[in-house]
Amino acid sequence: MSNLDQIAKLAGFSKATVSRVLNQSPHVSHETRTKILKIMQEMDYVPNRNAISLSKGQTLQIGIITSTINEIVLAFLDSFVEIAGQYSFQTIIYTSGEDKKKELQAFEDLKRKRIDALVIISCVNDTDLLSTYCKYGPIVSWQRMEHTAIRSVAMDQYEGYMLALQHLIQKGYTRIANAFGRPSSINTQSRQRAYEHIMSEHNLPILQHWNHSSIYNIRDGEQVVRDLLQRRDEFPEAILCANDYVAVGILCEARRQSLSVPEDLAIIGFDNTELAHTMGITTVQNPIMGQAQNAFFMLSPQLIGRQMELHSLEYSLIERTTT
Amino acid sequence: MSNLDQIAKLAGFSKATVSRVLNQSPHVSHETRTKILKIMQEMDYVPNRNAISLSKGQTLQIGIITSTINEIVLAFLDSFVEIAGQYSFQTIIYTSGEDKKKELQAFEDLKRKRIDALVIISCVNDTDLLSTYCKYGPIVSWQRMEHTAIRSVAMDQYEGYMLALQHLIQKGYTRIANAFGRPSSINTQSRQRAYEHIMSEHNLPILQHWNHSSIYNIRDGEQVVRDLLQRRDEFPEAILCANDYVAVGILCEARRQSLSVPEDLAIIGFDNTELAHTMGITTVQNPIMGQAQNAFFMLSPQLIGRQMELHSLEYSLIERTTT
Repeated sequence: MSNLDQIAKLAGFSKATVSRVLNQSPHVSHETRTKILKIMQEMDYVPNRNAISLSKGQTLQIGIITSTINEIVLAFLDSFVEIAGQYSFQTIIYTSGEDKKKELQAFEDLKRKRIDALVIISCVNDTDLLSTYCKYGPIVSWQRMEHTAIRSVAMDQYEGYMLALQHLIQKGYTRIANAFGRPSSINTQSRQRAYEHIMSEHNLPILQHWNHSSIYNIRDGEQVVRDLLQRRDEFPEAILCANDYVAVGILCEARRQSLSVPEDLAIIGFDNTELAHTMGITTVQNPIMGQAQNAFFMLSPQLIGRQMELHSLEYSLIERTTT
Repeated sequence: MSNLDQIAKLAGFSKATVSRVLNQSPHVSHETRTKILKIMQEMDYVPNRNAISLSKGQTLQIGIITSTINEIVLAFLDSFVEIAGQYSFQTIIYTSGEDKKKELQAFEDLKRKRIDALVIISCVNDTDLLSTYCKYGPIVSWQRMEHTAIRSVAMDQYEGYMLALQHLIQKGYTRIANAFGRPSSINTQSRQRAYEHIMSEHNLPILQHWNHSSIYNIRDGEQVVRDLLQRRDEFPEAILCANDYVAVGILCEARRQSLSVPEDLAIIGFDNTELAHTMGITTVQNPIMGQAQNAFFMLSPQLIGRQMELHSLEYSLIERTTT
């Protein structure tokens, strides 16, 4: 009788349920999980992942490829390193600086079995080229991918942005500006669609100089406020931000310019970072940790021989003091 | 005549000066640098680093080992990736989660020539063991090292902390609290020494519950304010923080608790991040970019066959609105 069978028998649950607990599936009740974990602890049960890996010739290293390391990718990186570590895998982060050749190094390392799997945070090479590497090991992406060979854990930001827009409109704001990120990204395009849909649905005005693009960080956010103040008679009532850092920059600069928030300008961030929490910024909770865990779970059949249930993820609006 | 000789001749400077420009030494005037760079551009001069590297059997990859990826190490990582990229090297970041075995993977990769050099951000293995890997390739550390075999780019935080303390005392603050980081780190110990020296020198009080340890992030900072408010009659006039994130948490929580900053509580951060800038937090400018560049410069003799002049780095106090 295997250890798993014994645990199932002692706990009075099926082997599938025990397996679900091991795989951290959300579809197990808290009580069941606690009971099974207690029995595992009593039995001193440790899933012998190293043994599995050695027999498969694995390196126990997973690569992540990213063009840069910044605050935005930090939450994903951190969560992925954590979940991979729980399964005895080390995460190695390749930086490319958007250099195609450096980016390919990570894919070549997958080919040469220097790493067991690869996670894409951002890439600049042609997706058709990158997908030819799928035969060497599992690849998943946080970036939205156009190629079906590489699965993505990305969520459609249309939904998240729509939550923020609906919140503003319910509160009676009608003059709504945007601080968008990279214009070419699928995420930005989804946000733009949500904005255009809702504004036209409610017959609300869209002024061209309310739409800012390539806004990424605190300094960019500060500049947006100064730019908007150039046309004081056409000043918006609210602004949606590419991320919480941009929202922090806008909030601090607005206060320096003697604007009251939310009376003169309402602000909504994106991601729900610790900064949005401490500064009381209304934001969209982006389940980045869940996406990072899903990335590992998608790799798991090939890494640890187990199919793992993906988290079902949703955005939610966190209302604070800036709206 | 080599390309370098030609450039020197055309520019009217010595070959050493041209070399200094190539090596981004700060000891070249702006005018000289501009003139030499212009000539290089006219000559279409590109230092052929790839050619050098291939002949040496290099991988053009530099490893960085860190226990975690967080906001504090981000600035160093980012600057190192940038400077290494300028010299055609890709940076690969190994995460260890403070696991000794995973940490050693990075050192083993140096031994197996999978990487050309290694930079330590944080490590938990015995320094004597780690220094045995120096024979396989150059190793430098951001973390302060007790072993002389591994050079460190770290600065003595005693100096930086002293600047902040002197600033407070000059402003008339006498009841000064601390939110220190990791108690066992050499940095924290240096800060503690600075605090004890200056307080005893000025015969100022040190209350035990003013000294908080293991304070790392925004949430920790918020908690410090709530803890200090437990003894309102012994509330400090000022607090020095482990880093700017802690200062942000303290500032936001102080305001929520209806404390005026700096009237009821003065706050000084550390590092001078973008957050301290936008929120107007007085802080200590920590030249992290310079330290990251120095890390690359220390590796450069073995990586690119060039001795590079290290930046001479100093802390400075950035006075803003929280003191």
